This record gives sequence, structure tokens and C-alpha cells, in this order.
Amino acid sequence: MLETIKLTSEFWSRYQEVVSKNVIPYQWQALNDQLPDAEPSHAVKNFEIAAGLAEGEYYGEVFQDSDVAKWIETVAYSLREYPNQELSERVDRLIEIIGQAQEEDGYLNTYYQLKHPEYKWANLRDNHELYCAGHFIEAAVAYYQSTGKRQLLSIMEKFVELIQQTFGSEAGKRHGYPGHEEIELALLRMYDVTDNPMHLELAKYFIEERGKAPNYFEGEKEERQGKDLTWNDDNHINFGLGYEYQQAHLPIRQQEQAVGHAVRAVYYYTAVADLAKKIGDQSLTETVKRLWQDIVERQMYITGGIGSSAIGESFTCHHDLPNDTMYCETCASVGLAFFANKMQQLELSGEYGDIFEKLIYNGTISGMNLTGDRFFYVNPLEINQFQKHRKDQEHVLYERQKWLKTACCPPNLARFIASLDRYILSEETETITIHQYISCEYQSQGFSLTLQSDLPWNGAIRLTIKSKEVVKKAIRLRIPEWTKETVQIYVNQQSKTLPIEQGYVTLEESWQNQDTITLEFDMSPKLIYANQQVIENIGKVAIQKGPVIYCLEELDNGADLARLYVEELADVETQELPSLYQGKALTFTGYRMAGNSTKMYHDKGVTFEKTALTAVPYYAWGNRGYGEMRVWLNKY
Amino acid sequence: MLETIKLTSEFWSRYQEVVSKNVIPYQWQALNDQLPDAEPSHAVKNFEIAAGLAEGEYYGEVFQDSDVAKWIETVAYSLREYPNQELSERVDRLIEIIGQAQEEDGYLNTYYQLKHPEYKWANLRDNHELYCAGHFIEAAVAYYQSTGKRQLLSIMEKFVELIQQTFGSEAGKRHGYPGHEEIELALLRMYDVTDNPMHLELAKYFIEERGKAPNYFEGEKEERQGKDLTWNDDNHINFGLGYEYQQAHLPIRQQEQAVGHAVRAVYYYTAVADLAKKIGDQSLTETVKRLWQDIVERQMYITGGIGSSAIGESFTCHHDLPNDTMYCETCASVGLAFFANKMQQLELSGEYGDIFEKLIYNGTISGMNLTGDRFFYVNPLEINQFQKHRKDQEHVLYERQKWLKTACCPPNLARFIASLDRYILSEETETITIHQYISCEYQSQGFSLTLQSDLPWNGAIRLTIKSKEVVKKAIRLRIPEWTKETVQIYVNQQSKTLPIEQGYVTLEESWQNQDTITLEFDMSPKLIYANQQVIENIGKVAIQKGPVIYCLEELDNGADLARLYVEELADVETQELPSLYQGKALTFTGYRMAGNSTKMYHDKGVTFEKTALTAVPYYAWGNRGYGEMRVWLNKY
Repeated sequence: MLETIKLTSEFWSRYQEVVSKNVIPYQWQALNDQLPDAEPSHAVKNFEIAAGLAEGEYYGEVFQDSDVAKWIETVAYSLREYPNQELSERVDRLIEIIGQAQEEDGYLNTYYQLKHPEYKWANLRDNHELYCAGHFIEAAVAYYQSTGKRQLLSIMEKFVELIQQTFGSEAGKRHGYPGHEEIELALLRMYDVTDNPMHLELAKYFIEERGKAPNYFEGEKEERQGKDLTWNDDNHINFGLGYEYQQAHLPIRQQEQAVGHAVRAVYYYTAVADLAKKIGDQSLTETVKRLWQDIVERQMYITGGIGSSAIGESFTCHHDLPNDTMYCETCASVGLAFFANKMQQLELSGEYGDIFEKLIYNGTISGMNLTGDRFFYVNPLEINQFQKHRKDQEHVLYERQKWLKTACCPPNLARFIASLDRYILSEETETITIHQYISCEYQSQGFSLTLQSDLPWNGAIRLTIKSKEVVKKAIRLRIPEWTKETVQIYVNQQSKTLPIEQGYVTLEESWQNQDTITLEFDMSPKLIYANQQVIENIGKVAIQKGPVIYCLEELDNGADLARLYVEELADVETQELPSLYQGKALTFTGYRMAGNSTKMYHDKGVTFEKTALTAVPYYAWGNRGYGEMRVWLNKY
Repeated sequence: MLETIKLTSEFWSRYQEVVSKNVIPYQWQALNDQLPDAEPSHAVKNFEIAAGLAEGEYYGEVFQDSDVAKWIETVAYSLREYPNQELSERVDRLIEIIGQAQEEDGYLNTYYQLKHPEYKWANLRDNHELYCAGHFIEAAVAYYQSTGKRQLLSIMEKFVELIQQTFGSEAGKRHGYPGHEEIELALLRMYDVTDNPMHLELAKYFIEERGKAPNYFEGEKEERQGKDLTWNDDNHINFGLGYEYQQAHLPIRQQEQAVGHAVRAVYYYTAVADLAKKIGDQSLTETVKRLWQDIVERQMYITGGIGSSAIGESFTCHHDLPNDTMYCETCASVGLAFFANKMQQLELSGEYGDIFEKLIYNGTISGMNLTGDRFFYVNPLEINQFQKHRKDQEHVLYERQKWLKTACCPPNLARFIASLDRYILSEETETITIHQYISCEYQSQGFSLTLQSDLPWNGAIRLTIKSKEVVKKAIRLRIPEWTKETVQIYVNQQSKTLPIEQGYVTLEESWQNQDTITLEFDMSPKLIYANQQVIENIGKVAIQKGPVIYCLEELDNGADLARLYVEELADVETQELPSLYQGKALTFTGYRMAGNSTKMYHDKGVTFEKTALTAVPYYAWGNRGYGEMRVWLNKY
């Protein structure tokens, strides 16, 4: 399908261009340590050393290789829209080096090759060999699909063979599985292009072996007494989170709640959802539906962020959603989008597209500045004047960084943006389903479809059929949750009243050339309440317009945002802010609270005065200077 | 003065009796590892081993000795009111053992004697030798003052001589000072009984040497490369707080803000205030006034708790007062009371008595259950349903513990309660000043004074003079901050209108036998607001009646306390709760919020319904079962 859709959305084209023109070259510099004043990466150099092309020692995190993989994957997607001979040759040369770095038997992981060849596979719990393999598999698949070039795919097929010979439930094989899930979803993607049943089987093995008793990581730990030790051997294991940290506390079908490290969790569940569909397994389907609900109805921030605690970058418990100490890693939101997509393929329900839409306009792209050269790992919902003085909130930064020591997020977000066209619509024999209202041209068998949308700024949507012949296709349209009660639908200007089923309306018509479907979504800003169980947000509201969550910044509203109150949005107006590119601000009247005493504690009450307030899209915060920021506002 | 005052307050007599009858024997069992299912202490055994009376190895924290010292100090105070021959002999025997444990040259610290005799004084930063010495000095002084027995005082005088020979600004001496302040205030107490100028000088040296550049701890660290290492050598020093952790970042006179570990800070400032008075030093006086203000006007909880962060058990920054992640160590509140007392001696201002009163009725005694056998180290202002799931809030317990691994708080609170009579009033040549309205009989030269008060439950105060002759003494009375605007004062039933100066009114009369002064304090419950800079408490109020801060418990009000709102206290009633001993509850009508949707995020608003609420004194929370608790309530 990659070749049949062309993204034309102004909003997303700009982002894809940023990725192509800025992020890809910028990250290449980062991976080659050419950025001044940024954390060193050394990631390319590690491969050159392993390939025998350079001298030196391994440097970086144990998962440094994966940054190279994600960069290749991003380039793969980006080259489709932005062909670039020089870049293409650079990737081919890099893949050559990777090939040279690969060992005879297929093994490929520069950390172990250069630092501890004697300890390969000795610490799956902490050391990310299978995780890095997963990212290279994804890169290989994407590069093959985009360019038709098989080199990286071959390299990875060879490595996967070694992995399959090494791991499995058969006697004589290691009964292990990765400490950080990723290879599962990657193997399933590989299976999509190779049709090799071994790839499916290996994914199934990793998914189902996980969490069986006795725990593999326990045995592994016994075995490597004194060797290949990590930070995790010195501490109470996994930050005191036990094997829930890695979702390895129970076999998948017994898991009731989303637990542990949020990125690991959603990568795992993404694979489980894909496997459930591929093998038609009902109990797996029920399991992922349960885990999905557990996240989005009890553990997800309004921005689509997940991971309430920095300790283990993890889920904590239902409705525990602090706005100032949370983690909300960019990678976790990207991973939740992958999960949403696989759920959407598993069963038709608008909720998956709703959450996907929430993620793309909020908690994912907040991880990058508007020009693509500064990145957040952690995406707070509140920046206040205290965080920088608190040692327990050192993970919360108010300024995006040039590069990160653990640089998982920047390339993850880049590859996601560069491949966004994959998530807009799907076509089955008798139906085309529109999941996301992102402008594009879609070319099908004998007809094409033009989708025009100015989301997230304007709710007028238009689909136009181009066809020489009459097309018999049902067109299924997701009706976003935020407009469900007010949506208007027209076919060729004729109003239609249609039932919303599972979040979609279905138009069963025979389509002729120049037929149009138009939708009018209600884009009026709304005050949103959190579930009453979320004690952090009691007495508070957030502002949402269409799919976009807004926030207040100190820059527009002065300091002490905690003292601002919102009554309603009666006089709200939309305002252009050129510095935010297409981003639109909202202005409205609110209140500022003042204490009636300068004392620390007093009985003099408080007073309120009206004040003009300006809210900006959450994803764009911290792009015009630094200061306080706040999503949840006091309700007057 | 210790012999001339007898505490008769019903409230405090019960507490002192609890200390005498329950806490002292209970803690003796703890110190001797006779409590089942409690953290072992081994503290007495360590002395027996050092004295050559028992076999075995040192066990416990590096400051384990100090628990013994605080227990002796508590017994010293308690024996005055509750004579007990057996207990008295037990202490004498213990002091004998301590004497036997002392080395020839005076050195006394069982940790170093038993574990690392070669590393004495090698790690002042972390290892508490001088801290333990300080506590033994305090115990020695108290025991001497209460019983007239000099044995422990002599032991400590000998040790202090060694310390004085070891430390000082002279060439050939170590220019060190303790990592945990305590010996400074202890030496000044010792000076009060010994009049030995060396004791004053040594305290002055420790106080003034601290924080000078180059930092002593840096040099010490260099010197002990590889030896006597602690947890603190492995990490970023002092939890990343630098030498602010120990208030050793600057010389005292340059310190502008209360910083670092809260207990260390207030112990230090207590000594500085005492020294400032003893030597009449203006710049030290200004310094402690500045630091006092910095705490009580910018860094103190409404309960008198201090220490906003568990990391380093420390202050963070102005107005950063989270209610659920705070530390508020019991010891820190006790230490702040010591500081208040020394400030009160340094200058007359009712604020010191106000804060002292806040401390005794709230954040200190909350550290112990009502029967004296369960203890808190951390005193939260909020217990919610999430804390037990959060690894970053593991320090917050909802249930007091039998004993604590770091057992500083239980004996600290016990010695404070047992000595409370020391803080009620002071007498100078021409004036008697009443600081605290705690019922007592005070015997002066030629006359006596009876103070009758049912505080904290009743605001009627009566003072009666008993004298054969006319007494010419000004009587100065602190007017508590919470009643300042409404207080009524009578002398022999005659109403007096008097100016409140520095928080006190002064009655300049000639007093005859049976003359009475009565005061009527307004005890109506009030809603209290925090300063608007405290973002945690915006939109919230606390309930205060007299000096007592109230809280809601789940037990009385159902779960989800975060959803309760208070409008005003129009229909408030006082209710007896026998299970809280004299503790009175307040009942009133409030509101319970309900969400209008079961969804995670929605635009349906919220609704409120009236509900009957019950508040109990904060200090008494967690005495009748366990559940949520909350001091700061939403304002309707």
C-alpha cells in the first residue's frame, strides 16, 4: 500500500518536510558525533569498528545500535516523498558496513561484539540484543518496501535464523525472550513481506513464552553469577517493580492490567494484537482488548501520554495521573499509536482511531520542537516554578534537548511521522475505511480518492471520487469522538442521517466520477473533565478544540499559572500565531486568584479578578521561550 | 528551673504518662531487641560489647548509639514526675556500661570502636560520631539536672576534652565539624551547667568553622581515598544536594536560606540562636532571624512539618509544599520547636511561641500513636489511594510502625514530651512571661502561680497568684496568633484593654494573694488558606480550631476524600470521640463531587451533593484504622 497513497496535508507535509530536511540530516550528524554541545552518540562508529573499518572502543548505551536502525527506517519512509540520491547512497553504504559488521553465523550487536563477545545472550533481561535486532528488522522491512533493496533484509533474515536456532521451546534451545519487547512486532512485520512461517512462529514463541514460570530471567541471573552484571543486579530488581517491569510476571493470557515500563508494554501489546489477528486467536484477542481498555480508560493522560512514574518509566495504578511528576515518554506515545493501529486492524471500533488521532496531535509530536532539532524524552502536563528545585523531578525538563544520552525518542518520532500515510485508511474487498482525516490522494484499482482536510484547525472534510467507471465500494468513515453528537454528513451536497456504528458511519453507494462526500465536524472549543477518580484533576478542566489539547504558557499569561481559573469559553476566539506555523491560539476571559494576605497561612480568603488568557496547542509548548506551562486549569 | 514547675495539664499529663508508662519501657525493649516483629536495634548490646561485657559484632546504623542517649534523656525528664527506683537503677547500670565502653582517652562511639577503630574521625561527613556525642551530652546534662548524678556528665566531659584536643582552628588540630549537627546545641547546654568556657568555645568553633572554604569534607574525602567508604561515596554526593545538604556550603553568616536536610538545619540553627544570645553577637542574631523567617514564612507546612522532599529529607525551595510526597520528619518538627525556643530566648516575639504551639499540637505528636507504641518517621498531610502503588512515595506510610530501622524519631519525640514543662514560661528579674498555656504550678521566690488551661479544647485561661506578700512583677502573656483579634483579658474579673506588642500583652500590677488573670480565646473553627504561592493548596482550605489543625479520614467520611468540598463551617459542631481520648471531632456539612460520566475524559461537567463531614485533629489521624487522610480540602 505504501506506493498507493500520497499525503498532501498541509499540517503533516510540513512535519514530514521537517523530518526530511532537518531531522534526518540532524540525526545523521548526531549519530556521527558531529553536533557541538550535544550528548555524543558514537552509534555509527560502533558499527565501523565492528566491521573492522575503524579503530576504537565501543561507546554508548547497550541499545545504541537501535538508533541507527530507527534512522534507516525513517530515511526509508522519507525517500518515497523526498528522493535524494546522496542520502540513498549514504544508507546503502551504511548497510554495507552493517553487513561487514555481521558475524559469520549471523550475529549482529556491536555492544556485545566489541565489549563482551563472551557474554552474548547472557543477560536478556537488561541488555537489549533482541530489542536492537527488532529495530533492524523493522528498518530492513521498511527499506525493502520503499526501495525494493533487499540487502538489509537479507542481513536480518540471516540474524533471525541464528535467533531462531538459539531460542525456542524445544529442548537444547534457550527458553528466553527479550527484556525489552520489540522483536515480536518486528518479526510479524517481517512475516508480512517474507511470508516465511518461521518468522511468524518465532514471534509467537517470544510472545507466549514470556512470563511462564519459572521465570527465565531468574534462571539467567543464576547462570551468569558474577558475569555480565548491570545496574539492575546491584539494586532491588527492576526498580523494585519486579518482573511486571517487563510484563514478564505472567503469561500474556493471564495479564489483566497494563503494567511496568510503558514503552515495553505497548510494544508487546502491539505484537500481541498483530499475532491475534494473524493466527485468529480468540483468547489473545480478549487479552489485548482488556489491556487496551486498561490503558485508555484508566491509565492514559489526556494528551495520550502514558507512564505515570519516572521510576521504571512505568505505569503505576488506575487513575494515578500526576501532571508534574509523570513520565509520558515520547516513545510510549508512539508505541501506543502502533498498538492502536494493530487493534484497529484486529476489530473495527472508532475508539482506536480516536486515540490514534489524540496521539498524533498531542503527546507524540510534543516530543519534538517545530523545526525538528530539539527533543523531549519526557512530556509533562505541567511545568511549574518548583520542578527545577526538586531532585525527584529532575527528569522533567522545560526545554527540549539537542540530543539525549538515551536517544530512543527522536528517531522513533521521526520514523513515525515519516510513515504517517500508512495509518490514514484501509481497503478491503468491498470497503474503504477512512480512519484519519489527513489530506491525501489514494490510488486504488480503477479509481482514486482525494481526501481534503484542514484538521486539526478546520472541521470541513471533503472526499472526492475520481473514476472512469461506477465504483461499488462501501465507504466507511470514522466519526471522531469529539464531534460525534454534532457531525453533519453530505453526499453531493445532500444531507445524510446515518447511524454511527462502532464509531463509524458507512455509505453504501455506487460512486461516480466527481462524487463528493463532505463532513462538517464541530470544532468549537470545549472544557474537558477528567474522570472523578483522577484526584490530580479534581476541580480542573482542560481545553480541547477538535482533537487538539491546549495548554497555557507563562509567555502568554504571566507567571503563576496555578492561580488561573477558567469559567467557560463564552468569548473564545481563535488567533493566528505565526511563530507556531499553522498552530492556532485560543483567547478567552478567565480569572486570576489573589490571596488576601502575605502570610504563609491566614483566614482572609482569596479574591478573583478577570484576566485575558491565551491557550496554545499542547504539542507546540516550549517553542517560543521557556517558563511555566499547564494543561489542567482550575475551574471557576 | 526544672524543679520549680509542675505540669498539670490534662492533655499533656496524659502524654507524659504515656511516655512514662508505655514509651520508656517499650523503647527499652526495642533497644534490647525484645520486641517481636519489629526492626532490631542492638543499641544496648553494642555498648555491652564495647565494654567487654558481651560477645558479638556491632549491628545497626552508624548513629545507633544516639538512640540510647535519647532514651536516657527521656528517662531523666520523666523520673521527676514519675519516680521509679527500678528504672533509675537500670539507667545507672547502663551509664556504668557506657563508662566501661569509653576508651582511655575519652573516645566513645561503639560503631567505630567495634567496626573500624582505625578510621576514627575519618568520615565526619557521613558517620555521626560527633552527632552521637552530642546526644550523650544532652542526656548527661538532663540526667544531672534531674537527679544530681554526675556519672554520665563526667564521661561526656572527658569525651569533650578529647574532641576539643582533636578539633579546632589551631594548627595541628583537625579543622573539621560534624556532618550532622547536634553537638553544637549540646555543648551549649553543657556550658549552662558546667560554666566551662571551653564548652562554649568548642560550640562556637563548630558553628563558625562550618562551610568555610575550602570545604573540610572535600579534603577529608581526599584523605580517606578507599577507606571508610559509605553510601555517599558511591553516589552523586549528598543525594545531589551538595554541601547544602549539611548546611556546609557557606559560613553561617552568609547563609540566606534554610537548605538541605531539615533536621540537620534546625539543630544547627538552634545552636546558632543559643550562641548568638550567649555571646551577644549581632550578625549571628540577624542570621538566625533570617533563617527562621525563611522557614516559617516560606517552607513550613501548616502542621509545623518541614522538609518538602524525601530526597535528602530536605528543604527544596520557597513555597514548594506538596502534601503527598513531602517528608515532614517527626525529628524535624521537634528540632523546629527547639529552634523556636532558642529564638524566643534571643528576642521577645510571640511568633516563636505561636509556632511552638503549632508544633506541639500538630506535627510533633502526630509522630506517635495515642498509646505510645507506634511511630511515624514521615508525617504526610495527605494519604490517598495511589501512594502505596508509587515507588517514589514508598517513604509515605499510612500506618505507624512498631520500631524503625532509623529510629531517631520515637526517642526524640519522647524526650520532647517528657520535658515540655521547660517551655511553658520564663522568669526574669522583673517579669514573668507566659509562652504556652499549658496548665502548671510554678513556684518562684516568695510566690507561686497557677496556670489553668484546657487548651487545645477550650479557650478559657486562668492564672492565679498565691503569695503572702504583695508581688511586684510584670506578667507578660503571649496572645496566640489565632485569637489575636478577639482575645478578652480580665484581671480579677475586670476587663482590660491592652496593646499587643510583639505578640504579648503586659500586665504591670502589684499582685496579691488570689489575684486572677483570665483570658478568653476565641476557639471557633476557621478555614485557613495557604499563601497563594503554594500551588499545591490553591483552591483549598484547611480547618483550624484554636491551635489544632484538623483533617478528614476515610473512616469517618468514606473513600475518595479528594472529592469532598467545604463551603463554610456554618453548622459546625464539636463532638466527643472517646477513642481519641480528649480529642474532639468537628462535624459540619460539606459537598461531595461526582463526575457525570464514567469515561476517562468527558465534557459532561460535574455535580455536587451535600454530605455530612467529620474532621478529627491531625495529630490523632491513623489511630482508629487505616485509610485515606487529607488536611487540605477543596473550597466549594
